[in-house]
Amino acid sequence: MRVVDLIRHKRDGGTFDRAAIDFFVSGVTSGTIAEYQAAALLMAIFLRGMNDEETVALTTAMVDSGVRVTYPGLDGIPVDKHSTGGVGDKTSIVLAPLVAACGAPVPMMSGRGLGHTGGTLDKLEAIPGFRTGLSLDQLRRALAKIGCAMIGQTAEIAPADRKLYALRDVTGTVESIPLICASIMSKKIAEGIGGLVLDVKTGHGAFMKTREDSRRLARSLVDIGIASGVRTEALITAMDAPLGRAVGNASEVIESLETLKGRGPRDLEDLSVALAARMLVLSAVARDPGEGEHRIRKAIASGDGVEKFREIVANQGGDPAIVDDYSRLPSAPDEYRVTAARSGAIAGLKAEHIGRAAVELGAGRARIEDTVDPGVGIDVLLPPGSRVRAGETVLLVHHRGGRGLDEAALLLADSIVIDDVAGHEPPIILEEIKQAR
Amino acid sequence: MRVVDLIRHKRDGGTFDRAAIDFFVSGVTSGTIAEYQAAALLMAIFLRGMNDEETVALTTAMVDSGVRVTYPGLDGIPVDKHSTGGVGDKTSIVLAPLVAACGAPVPMMSGRGLGHTGGTLDKLEAIPGFRTGLSLDQLRRALAKIGCAMIGQTAEIAPADRKLYALRDVTGTVESIPLICASIMSKKIAEGIGGLVLDVKTGHGAFMKTREDSRRLARSLVDIGIASGVRTEALITAMDAPLGRAVGNASEVIESLETLKGRGPRDLEDLSVALAARMLVLSAVARDPGEGEHRIRKAIASGDGVEKFREIVANQGGDPAIVDDYSRLPSAPDEYRVTAARSGAIAGLKAEHIGRAAVELGAGRARIEDTVDPGVGIDVLLPPGSRVRAGETVLLVHHRGGRGLDEAALLLADSIVIDDVAGHEPPIILEEIKQAR
Repeated sequence: MRVVDLIRHKRDGGTFDRAAIDFFVSGVTSGTIAEYQAAALLMAIFLRGMNDEETVALTTAMVDSGVRVTYPGLDGIPVDKHSTGGVGDKTSIVLAPLVAACGAPVPMMSGRGLGHTGGTLDKLEAIPGFRTGLSLDQLRRALAKIGCAMIGQTAEIAPADRKLYALRDVTGTVESIPLICASIMSKKIAEGIGGLVLDVKTGHGAFMKTREDSRRLARSLVDIGIASGVRTEALITAMDAPLGRAVGNASEVIESLETLKGRGPRDLEDLSVALAARMLVLSAVARDPGEGEHRIRKAIASGDGVEKFREIVANQGGDPAIVDDYSRLPSAPDEYRVTAARSGAIAGLKAEHIGRAAVELGAGRARIEDTVDPGVGIDVLLPPGSRVRAGETVLLVHHRGGRGLDEAALLLADSIVIDDVAGHEPPIILEEIKQAR
Repeated sequence: MRVVDLIRHKRDGGTFDRAAIDFFVSGVTSGTIAEYQAAALLMAIFLRGMNDEETVALTTAMVDSGVRVTYPGLDGIPVDKHSTGGVGDKTSIVLAPLVAACGAPVPMMSGRGLGHTGGTLDKLEAIPGFRTGLSLDQLRRALAKIGCAMIGQTAEIAPADRKLYALRDVTGTVESIPLICASIMSKKIAEGIGGLVLDVKTGHGAFMKTREDSRRLARSLVDIGIASGVRTEALITAMDAPLGRAVGNASEVIESLETLKGRGPRDLEDLSVALAARMLVLSAVARDPGEGEHRIRKAIASGDGVEKFREIVANQGGDPAIVDDYSRLPSAPDEYRVTAARSGAIAGLKAEHIGRAAVELGAGRARIEDTVDPGVGIDVLLPPGSRVRAGETVLLVHHRGGRGLDEAALLLADSIVIDDVAGHEPPIILEEIKQAR
C-alpha cells in the first residue's frame, strides 16, 4: 500500500476500507507517513467526506494507536461526559462528583480551552496544588479509592489523534464532521468507559451554529460510540449566552461549588443534573433519567456531591479548603463595568464575544504556549431576560492591570443585545439523541 | 496574511487575489510555509480549482520566484517547444537543430522521463560526453555562437515550481489543469522566450486520455502564455501508439538523426516539421506555417539541420562522431522478440504499455534516484496499419541480461492489438489551438 495511492483514491471520491485506514493511522503514529502526505489526505477527507463505516474504522484505528484503559476489579460501569465546547460551561466540575457520589465510576479526561471556549483542565488548575497530569495507574487507584478522577489525556491515549489534531489545526482541516467525531470518540473510547453522555452545543457560542449541523454531529457521535461498544447518548443544548453567570477559571470553580451546594444558577444546575442523570442510567445505577435525576438532586441536597468534590481535590493534590473558603482561589485585582447603552430587557448575551473577551483578558490562550491567568474573567450580573436601565452594569470584568481590557471591552459592549420587552427564557436542553432503532 | 486562512478560503471554494498567490509562492520558495500547509493548499486547489486569473497569477509568481532569462545582444526572437509527454516522442531532438539552422534562436530547456513517458535529457545523455547541465551564461554563449542549446532546467528557473512539483508528486496533486499549466508555463516563460509551440498529446499513451481534456489543457496553456507576453500556440496530437519506431534513449537519438537526414519515419518527420514551422512563424523568421514548413524541409534536404545538431553536440561536450557512426552510441547486448499471436493487421500498439515496458527494461526511472540505461529499448518493426502473420515479430526488445524483461514481455504482449483488416492510418495532428479572438 502506498500513501499517495490512498490520497488519490480519496481525492477522487473513493471510500476507504479498514486496511487502508489502519495503514494511514499507523503510518501517522509511527511517522512513516510524512506530514505533507497526511495533510493532503486530511484535506481530501475534508472535501470528499467519509461515510459511517470509514468514520468508525478511523475512530477504532485511532483508539488502537494507543492503549484502551481497563479497570481490573473495579465495581460498576465507568461513565464519562463530553461537551463540544461552550462559554461558561462548567458542568463537568458539577456532575463528575455528583455521579461518583451516586456510585458510578467517573474516569473523566478533559481538555484545555480551545478558541473562545473554556476547558475543564484550565478551570481545575485554578485550584492551588491541583494536578491534572495523573498517570493511568494513578487514575485506576483514584477510581478504586474515591470513584472519580478528573485528569488530562495521558500520552497513552490515542496518540494518533494528538498528531492528527495538531496537523488539522494548521492545515485548515478542523471543521469536518467525520474528523471531529473520530477525534472526540477515539479519546473517550480509549478511556475504557462503558457509557458516555455527549453535550452537543448549538448556537452563537458553539462551534456548530445551526441546529441541523449539531444534530448531524450528535447523530454521528452516538452512532460511533454504539458501534464501538460504548452506550452513548447525546443532548443538544443551547449555547447562545454563557452557561451560568461566571466566565473565567477560578470564578467558574466557585460557581460549580455553589451549584454543588444547591445555590447555583438554574440553567447550570438543570443541565448538569440532566447530563448526570443520564450518566447514572448508562452506568446502570438508575433505571431511567427520572430516577437518575432524583438521585442526583438528593446528592446535592445531602451535600454528598460537594464532599465528593472535596475528596477529588484532596486526592489530586489540591487544597480542599477552597471548597469552603473561596478567598483561597486566585482572583484578579481590577474591575471594569460594562453597562447598558439603553433601558429595556436583556434579549441576548453573545457567548462567542464573551468567550473571546475572556481569552483577551488571559483566561484562555491565543497560542498553545500561552499561560492562563486563573483570576481574570467576566461575571454576568444581568442574564438574558432581565430588565435593565440605561447605565446599569450588565457585565463585571475582572482583569489584571488592564491586560487585554481594550479588546475585551469592545467585544463585551458588542455582546449585549437589549430589546424593549423581555422574551421568554429559552430552554437549555433542546433535543435528545439516542440509538437509532 | 496567514497561510491557514488561505487554505480555508480555497477549501471553501474562494478565489485568490494576486497578493494571496504571491504570499503562497514566496512562502514556499523561502520555506516559511511548511510543506504540510503547502500540501493541504495544493489539495484544496486540486479539488476546488483555480480560474484563469488565478492560474496566470500563479504562473507569474512562480516565474518571479527565480530569474527570467534575458539574452542581451541576441539577434532574433528566441522560441521553444514543449510537449506534454509521450512515448517515442523525440521531436525536440529533431526540431531544435532545424529551427536553429533556419535562423531562430532555440534556448531549449527539457526534462527527464516522467512515468511511462521519455525525457529529452535522458535521450541526449545517451550521447557519450553530452552535458545537459549548462549554466545560464553557457546557455547565452551557446545561443550567441550556434543559435541553440539543449539543456536541463537551471536552478535559477522557477525554483518555486521545483518545490511544488516535488510536493505534488507525493501528495496526489499532479493531475490538476491549473497546477499543470502554471508548472509548465512558468518554466517556459522564465526561459526568456518570445514564442512557444505546445505539443499537447492526447490518447492512450498521453497523460490526458480524452480529446476534451487535452483541448482544455491546450486552451489554458495558450491563454497563460499570451497573458504573460509570450506568443503561444498549441497542436493537439495523437499519442495512442509510440511516435516513430524507436522507444529507448540511444535508439531515439539514432531515429532523430535519421529524421534529420530525411530518412525518418513519416509520423515523426511530419510532426517535427509542423511544430518547427510554427516556431519559425512565432520567431518571425517565416510569415506563415506554409513558408515555415518549406524552410524546415529545405534544412533537412540540405543537411543544414544535421550539421546544426553536430554543432550542438560538440558545443555541449558530446562526441560529434555519433552523427555518422551510430556504433559509438551505447546499445544493449540482448534481444527478445514479441510476436503476433494471430494473423491480420496491426490495429494498435498501446503506447502506455510500451512506455511502461521501456521503464521496466531500464530506459526510465521507477524512482527519482534510479539511473537510466541508455542502451535498452523497444523497436517497432510493424507499426499500426501493417499486415502481419501469426508468429511474425512485431516488437524487438533490446535488454541487458534480462533486466526487467519478464514484466516488459507481459506488457508488450498486451500492447499489440490485431484486427482482421487494416484501418486507415490515423492522422498525427488533430487540432490547432491559437489565441482566442
